[in-house]
Amino acid sequence: MSTDRFAFEAIGLVRSPFKEKFGIPRQPRLARHARATLEFLPPFDHPDCVRGLAGFSHVWLTFVFHQHVGRDWTPLIRPPRLGGNDKLGVFASRSTFRPNPLGLSLVELVAVEPGRLVLAGVDLLDGTPVLDVKPYIPFSDSAADARSELVPAPPATLPVHWSAAARTQLAGYAPMWPDLAALVDEVLAQDPRPAFHADPTRVYGVRLYELDVRFTVGAAGVEVVELRPVADAPPTLSSR
Amino acid sequence: MSTDRFAFEAIGLVRSPFKEKFGIPRQPRLARHARATLEFLPPFDHPDCVRGLAGFSHVWLTFVFHQHVGRDWTPLIRPPRLGGNDKLGVFASRSTFRPNPLGLSLVELVAVEPGRLVLAGVDLLDGTPVLDVKPYIPFSDSAADARSELVPAPPATLPVHWSAAARTQLAGYAPMWPDLAALVDEVLAQDPRPAFHADPTRVYGVRLYELDVRFTVGAAGVEVVELRPVADAPPTLSSR
Repeated sequence: MSTDRFAFEAIGLVRSPFKEKFGIPRQPRLARHARATLEFLPPFDHPDCVRGLAGFSHVWLTFVFHQHVGRDWTPLIRPPRLGGNDKLGVFASRSTFRPNPLGLSLVELVAVEPGRLVLAGVDLLDGTPVLDVKPYIPFSDSAADARSELVPAPPATLPVHWSAAARTQLAGYAPMWPDLAALVDEVLAQDPRPAFHADPTRVYGVRLYELDVRFTVGAAGVEVVELRPVADAPPTLSSR
Repeated sequence: MSTDRFAFEAIGLVRSPFKEKFGIPRQPRLARHARATLEFLPPFDHPDCVRGLAGFSHVWLTFVFHQHVGRDWTPLIRPPRLGGNDKLGVFASRSTFRPNPLGLSLVELVAVEPGRLVLAGVDLLDGTPVLDVKPYIPFSDSAADARSELVPAPPATLPVHWSAAARTQLAGYAPMWPDLAALVDEVLAQDPRPAFHADPTRVYGVRLYELDVRFTVGAAGVEVVELRPVADAPPTLSSR
Protein backbone atom coordinates (compact mmCIF):
# COMPACT_ATOMS: atom_id res chain seq x y z
CA MET A 1 0.00 0.00 0.00
CA SER A 2 1.49 3.33 -1.03
CA THR A 3 1.85 6.25 1.35
CA ASP A 4 -1.28 7.81 -0.14
CA ARG A 5 -3.49 4.81 0.63
CA PHE A 6 -4.83 3.92 4.05
CA ALA A 7 -6.77 0.99 5.47
CA PHE A 8 -9.37 1.33 8.19
CA GLU A 9 -11.50 -1.14 10.02
CA ALA A 10 -15.09 -0.88 11.22
CA ILE A 11 -15.35 -0.24 14.97
CA GLY A 12 -19.05 -1.11 14.87
CA LEU A 13 -22.18 -1.51 12.80
CA VAL A 14 -25.37 0.54 12.80
CA ARG A 15 -28.73 -1.10 13.41
CA SER A 16 -31.39 1.27 12.09
CA PRO A 17 -35.01 1.20 10.88
CA PHE A 18 -33.82 2.21 7.38
CA LYS A 19 -33.49 -0.99 5.38
CA GLU A 20 -33.06 0.65 1.99
CA LYS A 21 -31.72 3.95 0.73
CA PHE A 22 -35.10 5.24 -0.51
CA GLY A 23 -36.77 7.27 2.24
CA ILE A 24 -33.70 7.97 4.36
CA PRO A 25 -33.73 11.65 5.39
CA ARG A 26 -31.24 13.63 3.36
CA GLN A 27 -29.61 15.03 6.49
CA PRO A 28 -29.32 13.73 10.04
CA ARG A 29 -31.72 14.97 12.72
CA LEU A 30 -34.55 15.74 10.29
CA ALA A 31 -36.26 12.67 11.76
CA ARG A 32 -35.65 12.75 15.49
CA HIS A 33 -37.55 9.50 16.02
CA ALA A 34 -35.17 7.65 13.74
CA ARG A 35 -33.54 5.69 16.53
CA ALA A 36 -30.64 3.41 15.91
CA THR A 37 -27.90 1.66 17.80
CA LEU A 38 -24.21 1.54 17.10
CA GLU A 39 -23.16 -1.98 18.04
CA PHE A 40 -19.43 -1.96 18.74
CA LEU A 41 -17.34 -4.82 17.37
CA PRO A 42 -14.63 -6.33 19.58
CA PRO A 43 -12.19 -5.05 20.79
CA PHE A 44 -13.88 -1.65 20.42
CA ASP A 45 -16.73 -2.75 22.67
CA HIS A 46 -14.57 -2.42 25.79
CA PRO A 47 -16.44 -0.14 28.23
CA ASP A 48 -13.32 2.00 28.73
CA CYS A 49 -13.55 3.16 25.08
CA VAL A 50 -16.66 5.22 25.87
CA ARG A 51 -15.77 6.40 29.40
CA GLY A 52 -17.04 9.99 29.75
CA LEU A 53 -19.01 9.94 26.51
CA ALA A 54 -22.34 10.29 28.34
CA GLY A 55 -21.28 13.87 29.16
CA PHE A 56 -21.96 14.77 25.53
CA SER A 57 -25.40 15.11 23.99
CA HIS A 58 -24.31 14.67 20.37
CA VAL A 59 -21.63 12.71 18.55
CA TRP A 60 -20.09 12.63 15.10
CA LEU A 61 -20.13 9.36 13.26
CA THR A 62 -17.62 8.85 10.47
CA PHE A 63 -18.96 5.96 8.47
CA VAL A 64 -18.71 4.14 5.15
CA PHE A 65 -21.35 4.35 2.43
CA HIS A 66 -20.90 0.62 2.16
CA GLN A 67 -23.22 0.21 -0.79
CA HIS A 68 -20.85 2.48 -2.75
CA VAL A 69 -17.54 0.80 -1.94
CA GLY A 70 -15.73 0.06 -5.17
CA ARG A 71 -18.19 2.08 -7.25
CA ASP A 72 -17.15 4.79 -9.66
CA TRP A 73 -17.37 8.46 -8.84
CA THR A 74 -17.63 11.46 -11.13
CA PRO A 75 -16.42 15.03 -10.51
CA LEU A 76 -19.96 16.41 -10.95
CA ILE A 77 -23.14 15.21 -9.28
CA ARG A 78 -26.80 16.30 -9.52
CA PRO A 79 -28.04 16.97 -6.01
CA PRO A 80 -31.76 16.20 -5.61
CA ARG A 81 -32.11 19.48 -3.71
CA LEU A 82 -31.28 21.43 -6.86
CA GLY A 83 -34.10 19.69 -8.72
CA GLY A 84 -31.81 17.24 -10.49
CA ASN A 85 -30.89 19.67 -13.26
CA ASP A 86 -27.96 21.65 -11.90
CA LYS A 87 -24.64 19.99 -11.34
CA LEU A 88 -22.33 20.51 -8.43
CA GLY A 89 -18.78 19.39 -7.72
CA VAL A 90 -18.57 16.27 -5.61
CA PHE A 91 -16.62 18.15 -2.90
CA ALA A 92 -19.31 20.87 -2.86
CA SER A 93 -21.95 18.25 -2.02
CA ARG A 94 -22.71 15.62 0.58
CA SER A 95 -23.43 13.08 -2.16
CA THR A 96 -22.85 9.44 -1.30
CA PHE A 97 -20.94 8.97 -4.59
CA ARG A 98 -17.53 10.25 -3.47
CA PRO A 99 -13.91 9.40 -4.30
CA ASN A 100 -13.70 7.96 -0.78
CA PRO A 101 -17.20 6.80 0.23
CA LEU A 102 -17.02 8.38 3.68
CA GLY A 103 -20.07 9.79 5.43
CA LEU A 104 -20.25 12.20 8.33
CA SER A 105 -23.35 12.62 10.51
CA LEU A 106 -24.06 14.57 13.65
CA VAL A 107 -26.51 12.50 15.69
CA GLU A 108 -28.08 12.69 19.10
CA LEU A 109 -26.59 10.44 21.78
CA VAL A 110 -29.52 9.03 23.74
CA ALA A 111 -27.71 6.51 25.94
CA VAL A 112 -24.41 4.75 26.42
CA GLU A 113 -25.10 1.05 27.04
CA PRO A 114 -22.72 -1.89 27.38
CA GLY A 115 -21.21 -2.52 23.96
CA ARG A 116 -23.38 -0.02 22.17
CA LEU A 117 -24.65 3.52 21.79
CA VAL A 118 -28.32 4.42 21.44
CA LEU A 119 -28.70 7.20 18.88
CA ALA A 120 -31.52 9.38 17.56
CA GLY A 121 -31.96 11.45 14.42
CA VAL A 122 -29.95 9.07 12.28
CA ASP A 123 -29.85 9.10 8.47
CA LEU A 124 -28.00 5.81 8.25
CA LEU A 125 -28.80 2.60 6.45
CA ASP A 126 -29.10 -0.54 8.55
CA GLY A 127 -25.72 -2.29 8.55
CA THR A 128 -23.63 0.84 8.00
CA PRO A 129 -20.02 0.29 9.11
CA VAL A 130 -18.75 3.03 11.44
CA LEU A 131 -15.06 3.98 11.52
CA ASP A 132 -15.04 6.55 14.30
CA VAL A 133 -17.09 8.22 17.02
CA LYS A 134 -16.10 11.68 18.20
CA PRO A 135 -17.82 13.92 20.73
CA TYR A 136 -19.50 17.03 19.33
CA ILE A 137 -17.78 20.12 20.73
CA PRO A 138 -19.95 23.14 19.94
CA PHE A 139 -17.29 25.85 20.00
CA SER A 140 -14.99 24.10 17.54
CA ASP A 141 -17.56 22.13 15.53
CA SER A 142 -19.94 24.96 14.68
CA ALA A 143 -19.38 28.26 12.93
CA ALA A 144 -21.94 30.91 13.83
CA ASP A 145 -20.88 33.10 10.91
CA ALA A 146 -21.06 30.37 8.31
CA ARG A 147 -22.49 30.98 4.85
CA SER A 148 -23.92 28.17 2.71
CA GLU A 149 -25.74 29.73 -0.21
CA LEU A 150 -26.74 26.46 -1.81
CA VAL A 151 -28.24 24.95 1.34
CA PRO A 152 -29.48 27.85 3.44
CA ALA A 153 -32.27 26.06 5.34
CA PRO A 154 -33.78 22.65 6.00
CA PRO A 155 -35.98 21.41 3.16
CA ALA A 156 -39.68 22.27 3.32
CA THR A 157 -41.89 19.54 4.73
CA LEU A 158 -45.34 18.27 3.74
CA PRO A 159 -48.28 17.55 6.05
CA VAL A 160 -48.82 13.83 6.61
CA HIS A 161 -52.28 12.27 6.94
CA TRP A 162 -53.18 8.68 7.73
CA SER A 163 -55.96 6.66 6.11
CA ALA A 164 -58.35 4.94 8.50
CA ALA A 165 -56.98 1.57 7.39
CA ALA A 166 -53.37 2.58 8.04
CA ARG A 167 -54.33 4.02 11.42
CA THR A 168 -55.89 0.69 12.40
CA GLN A 169 -52.80 -1.20 11.25
CA LEU A 170 -50.60 1.20 13.19
CA ALA A 171 -52.40 0.32 16.42
CA GLY A 172 -51.36 -3.28 15.89
CA TYR A 173 -47.69 -2.43 15.44
CA ALA A 174 -47.39 0.20 18.19
CA PRO A 175 -46.48 -2.34 20.91
CA MET A 176 -43.49 -3.51 18.86
CA TRP A 177 -42.35 -0.10 17.59
CA PRO A 178 -43.70 2.62 19.91
CA ASP A 179 -42.11 5.41 17.86
CA LEU A 180 -43.43 4.13 14.54
CA ALA A 181 -46.13 6.78 14.03
CA ALA A 182 -43.73 9.64 14.74
CA LEU A 183 -41.04 8.08 12.55
CA VAL A 184 -43.41 7.62 9.61
CA ASP A 185 -44.62 11.22 9.99
CA GLU A 186 -41.07 12.58 10.05
CA VAL A 187 -39.80 10.48 7.16
CA LEU A 188 -42.75 11.09 4.84
CA ALA A 189 -42.91 14.83 5.67
CA GLN A 190 -39.52 15.05 3.90
CA ASP A 191 -41.22 13.96 0.65
CA PRO A 192 -38.86 11.15 -0.34
CA ARG A 193 -40.20 10.98 -3.91
CA PRO A 194 -37.65 11.33 -6.69
CA ALA A 195 -37.50 14.82 -8.23
CA PHE A 196 -40.24 15.56 -10.79
CA HIS A 197 -42.58 12.82 -9.65
CA ALA A 198 -46.01 14.46 -9.52
CA ASP A 199 -48.61 11.73 -10.02
CA PRO A 200 -51.07 11.87 -7.10
CA THR A 201 -52.37 8.37 -7.81
CA ARG A 202 -48.98 6.72 -7.67
CA VAL A 203 -48.39 4.58 -4.58
CA TYR A 204 -44.87 4.64 -3.18
CA GLY A 205 -43.38 2.38 -0.54
CA VAL A 206 -40.75 3.16 2.08
CA ARG A 207 -39.37 0.32 4.13
CA LEU A 208 -39.12 1.12 7.84
CA TYR A 209 -38.27 -1.63 10.28
CA GLU A 210 -39.99 -4.73 8.85
CA LEU A 211 -42.82 -2.76 7.26
CA ASP A 212 -43.49 -1.47 3.80
CA VAL A 213 -45.08 1.93 4.43
CA ARG A 214 -47.22 2.70 1.40
CA PHE A 215 -48.21 6.29 0.64
CA THR A 216 -49.37 8.76 -1.98
CA VAL A 217 -48.53 12.45 -2.40
CA GLY A 218 -51.17 14.91 -3.57
CA ALA A 219 -52.21 18.51 -3.17
CA ALA A 220 -53.20 17.94 0.47
CA GLY A 221 -49.83 16.44 1.33
CA VAL A 222 -48.83 12.88 2.04
CA GLU A 223 -51.39 10.17 2.77
CA VAL A 224 -50.27 6.99 4.49
CA VAL A 225 -52.30 4.33 2.71
CA GLU A 226 -51.18 1.10 4.27
CA LEU A 227 -48.60 -0.55 6.53
CA ARG A 228 -47.72 -3.91 5.12
CA PRO A 229 -45.31 -6.46 6.62
CA VAL A 230 -42.30 -6.81 4.34
CA ALA A 231 -42.82 -10.55 3.88
CA ASP A 232 -46.05 -9.65 2.04
CA ALA A 233 -44.60 -6.78 0.05
CA PRO A 234 -43.52 -7.08 -3.58
CA PRO A 235 -39.73 -6.67 -3.96
CA THR A 236 -38.98 -3.03 -4.60
CA LEU A 237 -36.62 -0.20 -3.81
CA SER A 238 -38.77 2.82 -4.47
CA SER A 239 -42.12 2.85 -6.19
CA ARG A 240 -44.47 0.74 -8.24
CA MET B 1 -9.66 -7.50 2.80
CA SER B 2 -12.65 -8.51 4.90
CA THR B 3 -15.98 -6.75 4.69
CA ASP B 4 -15.10 -4.82 7.84
CA ARG B 5 -11.92 -3.32 6.36
CA PHE B 6 -11.85 -0.46 3.88
CA ALA B 7 -9.11 1.22 1.86
CA PHE B 8 -9.08 4.92 1.09
CA GLU B 9 -6.77 7.12 -0.88
CA ALA B 10 -5.60 10.68 -0.26
CA ILE B 11 -7.37 13.23 -2.45
CA GLY B 12 -4.81 15.88 -1.51
CA LEU B 13 -2.14 17.00 0.93
CA VAL B 14 -2.14 19.95 3.32
CA ARG B 15 0.60 22.56 3.20
CA SER B 16 0.58 24.36 6.52
CA PRO B 17 2.90 26.45 8.71
CA PHE B 18 2.83 23.70 11.36
CA LYS B 19 5.91 21.56 10.80
CA GLU B 20 5.67 19.60 14.02
CA LYS B 21 2.90 18.55 16.37
CA PHE B 22 4.06 20.72 19.27
CA GLY B 23 2.30 24.08 19.13
CA ILE B 24 -0.58 23.09 16.87
CA PRO B 25 -3.80 24.56 18.31
CA ARG B 26 -5.87 21.86 20.00
CA GLN B 27 -8.93 22.74 17.95
CA PRO B 28 -9.39 24.31 14.54
CA ARG B 29 -10.16 28.02 14.23
CA LEU B 30 -8.44 28.98 17.49
CA ALA B 31 -5.72 30.48 15.28
CA ARG B 32 -7.49 32.22 12.43
CA HIS B 33 -4.20 33.29 10.87
CA ALA B 34 -3.10 29.69 10.51
CA ARG B 35 -3.44 29.62 6.74
CA ALA B 36 -2.88 26.49 4.76
CA THR B 37 -3.61 25.08 1.35
CA LEU B 38 -5.10 21.78 0.39
CA GLU B 39 -3.24 20.72 -2.75
CA PHE B 40 -5.40 18.23 -4.63
CA LEU B 41 -3.71 15.17 -6.12
CA PRO B 42 -4.72 14.03 -9.61
CA PRO B 43 -7.39 13.13 -10.66
CA PHE B 44 -9.06 14.97 -7.75
CA ASP B 45 -7.60 18.28 -8.94
CA HIS B 46 -10.13 18.49 -11.79
CA PRO B 47 -11.88 21.89 -11.50
CA ASP B 48 -15.31 20.22 -11.76
CA CYS B 49 -14.71 18.53 -8.39
CA VAL B 50 -15.05 21.86 -6.57
CA ARG B 51 -17.74 23.51 -8.73
CA GLY B 52 -20.03 25.49 -6.43
CA LEU B 53 -17.80 25.10 -3.39
CA ALA B 54 -17.07 28.83 -3.23
CA GLY B 55 -20.70 29.28 -2.13
CA PHE B 56 -19.71 27.89 1.26
CA SER B 57 -17.67 29.74 3.86
CA HIS B 58 -16.52 26.66 5.78
CA VAL B 59 -15.64 23.08 4.93
CA TRP B 60 -15.07 19.83 6.79
CA LEU B 61 -11.81 18.06 6.21
CA THR B 62 -11.64 14.35 6.96
CA PHE B 63 -7.96 13.58 7.21
CA VAL B 64 -5.43 11.04 8.42
CA PHE B 65 -3.26 11.54 11.49
CA HIS B 66 -0.47 10.22 9.31
CA GLN B 67 2.12 10.20 12.08
CA HIS B 68 -0.11 7.72 13.91
CA VAL B 69 -0.77 5.24 11.11
CA GLY B 70 0.10 1.76 12.32
CA ARG B 71 0.54 2.91 15.92
CA ASP B 72 -1.17 1.28 18.84
CA TRP B 73 -4.22 2.74 20.50
CA THR B 74 -5.56 2.26 24.00
CA PRO B 75 -9.18 2.46 25.20
CA LEU B 76 -8.31 5.27 27.63
CA ILE B 77 -6.41 8.47 26.93
CA ARG B 78 -5.32 11.40 29.11
CA PRO B 79 -6.56 14.59 27.46
CA PRO B 80 -4.24 17.56 28.12
CA ARG B 81 -7.32 19.66 28.83
CA LEU B 82 -8.08 17.60 31.93
CA GLY B 83 -4.61 18.32 33.31
CA GLY B 84 -3.18 14.97 32.25
CA ASN B 85 -4.48 13.13 35.30
CA ASP B 86 -8.01 12.09 34.39
CA LYS B 87 -8.60 9.46 31.77
CA LEU B 88 -11.27 9.49 29.13
CA GLY B 89 -12.44 6.89 26.63
CA VAL B 90 -10.90 7.29 23.21
CA PHE B 91 -14.36 7.77 21.64
CA ALA B 92 -15.15 10.49 24.21
CA SER B 93 -12.11 12.47 23.06
CA ARG B 94 -10.65 14.00 19.94
CA SER B 95 -7.28 12.40 20.69
CA THR B 96 -5.06 11.64 17.72
CA PHE B 97 -4.41 8.13 19.06
CA ARG B 98 -7.55 6.41 17.76
CA PRO B 99 -8.39 2.91 16.49
CA ASN B 100 -8.69 4.49 13.04
CA PRO B 101 -6.41 7.56 12.94
CA LEU B 102 -9.03 9.80 11.33
CA GLY B 103 -9.24 13.51 12.04
CA LEU B 104 -12.11 15.90 11.46
CA SER B 105 -11.69 19.68 11.30
CA LEU B 106 -14.04 22.51 10.45
CA VAL B 107 -11.95 25.16 8.69
CA GLU B 108 -12.60 28.44 6.95
CA LEU B 109 -12.61 28.35 3.15
CA VAL B 110 -10.75 31.48 2.00
CA ALA B 111 -10.52 30.79 -1.71
CA VAL B 112 -11.00 28.11 -4.34
CA GLU B 113 -8.00 28.20 -6.69
CA PRO B 114 -7.02 25.89 -9.55
CA GLY B 115 -6.00 22.57 -8.04
CA ARG B 116 -6.20 23.77 -4.46
CA LEU B 117 -8.18 25.31 -1.64
CA VAL B 118 -6.90 28.16 0.50
CA LEU B 119 -7.93 27.58 4.12
CA ALA B 120 -7.71 29.48 7.40
CA GLY B 121 -7.93 28.43 11.02
CA VAL B 122 -6.28 25.07 10.42
CA ASP B 123 -4.95 22.78 13.12
CA LEU B 124 -3.22 20.48 10.66
CA LEU B 125 0.34 19.33 10.38
CA ASP B 126 2.17 20.09 7.14
CA GLY B 127 1.85 17.09 4.83
CA THR B 128 -1.44 15.82 6.29
CA PRO B 129 -3.26 13.53 3.81
CA VAL B 130 -6.89 14.52 3.27
CA LEU B 131 -9.51 11.91 2.40
CA ASP B 132 -12.58 14.08 1.91
CA VAL B 133 -13.85 17.65 1.69
CA LYS B 134 -17.50 18.34 2.51
CA PRO B 135 -19.32 21.66 2.66
CA TYR B 136 -20.37 22.84 6.11
CA ILE B 137 -24.18 22.99 6.27
CA PRO B 138 -25.14 24.88 9.44
CA PHE B 139 -28.60 23.42 9.98
CA SER B 140 -27.48 19.82 9.85
CA ASP B 141 -23.90 20.20 11.11
CA SER B 142 -24.59 22.17 14.26
CA ALA B 143 -26.79 21.43 17.26
CA ALA B 144 -27.91 24.54 19.12
CA ASP B 145 -29.05 22.49 22.10
CA ALA B 146 -25.85 20.49 22.44
CA ARG B 147 -24.33 19.72 25.80
CA SER B 148 -20.61 18.96 26.24
CA GLU B 149 -19.82 19.01 29.92
CA LEU B 150 -16.16 18.14 29.54
CA VAL B 151 -15.41 20.82 26.95
CA PRO B 152 -17.84 23.66 27.63
CA ALA B 153 -15.75 26.54 26.24
CA PRO B 154 -12.58 27.35 24.35
CA PRO B 155 -9.45 27.14 26.48
CA ALA B 156 -8.32 30.29 28.27
CA THR B 157 -5.61 32.24 26.48
CA LEU B 158 -2.51 34.06 27.75
CA PRO B 159 -1.35 37.55 26.77
CA VAL B 160 1.63 37.47 24.39
CA HIS B 161 4.46 40.03 24.55
CA TRP B 162 7.41 40.39 22.22
CA SER B 163 10.99 41.15 23.25
CA ALA B 164 12.64 44.03 21.42
CA ALA B 165 14.99 41.57 19.72
CA ALA B 166 12.13 39.37 18.49
CA ARG B 167 10.24 42.44 17.28
CA THR B 168 13.26 43.48 15.20
CA GLN B 169 13.61 39.97 13.76
CA LEU B 170 9.91 39.94 12.94
CA ALA B 171 10.28 43.05 10.78
CA GLY B 172 12.78 41.12 8.65
CA TYR B 173 10.42 38.19 8.10
CA ALA B 174 7.21 40.16 7.55
CA PRO B 175 7.71 40.50 3.76
CA MET B 176 7.87 36.71 3.41
CA TRP B 177 5.12 35.82 5.92
CA PRO B 178 2.82 38.84 6.35
CA ASP B 179 0.60 37.02 8.86
CA LEU B 180 3.50 35.81 10.98
CA ALA B 181 2.98 38.20 13.91
CA ALA B 182 -0.71 37.37 14.18
CA LEU B 183 -0.04 33.65 13.83
CA VAL B 184 2.62 33.67 16.56
CA ASP B 185 0.27 35.62 18.84
CA GLU B 186 -2.59 33.19 18.27
CA VAL B 187 -0.51 30.04 18.63
CA LEU B 188 1.35 31.11 21.77
CA ALA B 189 -1.79 32.56 23.41
CA GLN B 190 -3.01 28.93 23.55
CA ASP B 191 -0.09 28.10 25.89
CA PRO B 192 1.28 25.07 24.05
CA ARG B 193 3.41 23.96 27.01
CA PRO B 194 2.89 20.41 28.27
CA ALA B 195 0.68 20.16 31.36
CA PHE B 196 2.43 20.92 34.66
CA HIS B 197 5.32 22.83 33.13
CA ALA B 198 5.73 25.94 35.28
CA ASP B 199 9.36 27.05 35.01
CA PRO B 200 9.38 30.73 33.92
CA THR B 201 13.05 30.54 32.87
CA ARG B 202 12.56 27.62 30.50
CA VAL B 203 12.79 28.52 26.82
CA TYR B 204 10.45 26.62 24.53
CA GLY B 205 10.47 26.51 20.76
CA VAL B 206 7.55 26.18 18.35
CA ARG B 207 8.31 25.68 14.69
CA LEU B 208 6.16 27.85 12.40
CA TYR B 209 6.99 28.00 8.71
CA GLU B 210 10.80 27.82 8.58
CA LEU B 211 11.28 29.50 11.94
CA ASP B 212 11.91 28.27 15.44
CA VAL B 213 9.82 30.66 17.55
CA ARG B 214 11.43 30.70 21.01
CA PHE B 215 9.41 31.81 24.02
CA THR B 216 9.06 31.73 27.80
CA VAL B 217 5.90 31.65 29.92
CA GLY B 218 5.77 33.56 33.22
CA ALA B 219 3.33 35.39 35.45
CA ALA B 220 2.92 38.18 32.86
CA GLY B 221 2.06 35.74 30.11
CA VAL B 222 4.07 34.58 27.11
CA GLU B 223 7.20 36.39 25.97
CA VAL B 224 8.47 35.83 22.45
CA VAL B 225 12.24 35.76 22.93
CA GLU B 226 13.60 35.11 19.49
CA LEU B 227 12.73 34.08 15.94
CA ARG B 228 15.46 31.79 14.64
CA PRO B 229 15.69 30.23 11.18
CA VAL B 230 15.27 26.48 11.50
CA ALA B 231 18.62 25.75 9.87
CA ASP B 232 20.28 27.36 12.92
CA ALA B 233 18.03 25.70 15.48
CA PRO B 234 19.05 22.65 17.49
CA PRO B 235 16.94 19.60 16.57
CA THR B 236 14.00 19.47 18.92
CA LEU B 237 10.33 18.75 19.18
CA SER B 238 9.33 20.72 22.21
CA SER B 239 11.64 22.34 24.71
CA ARG B 240 15.24 22.53 25.82
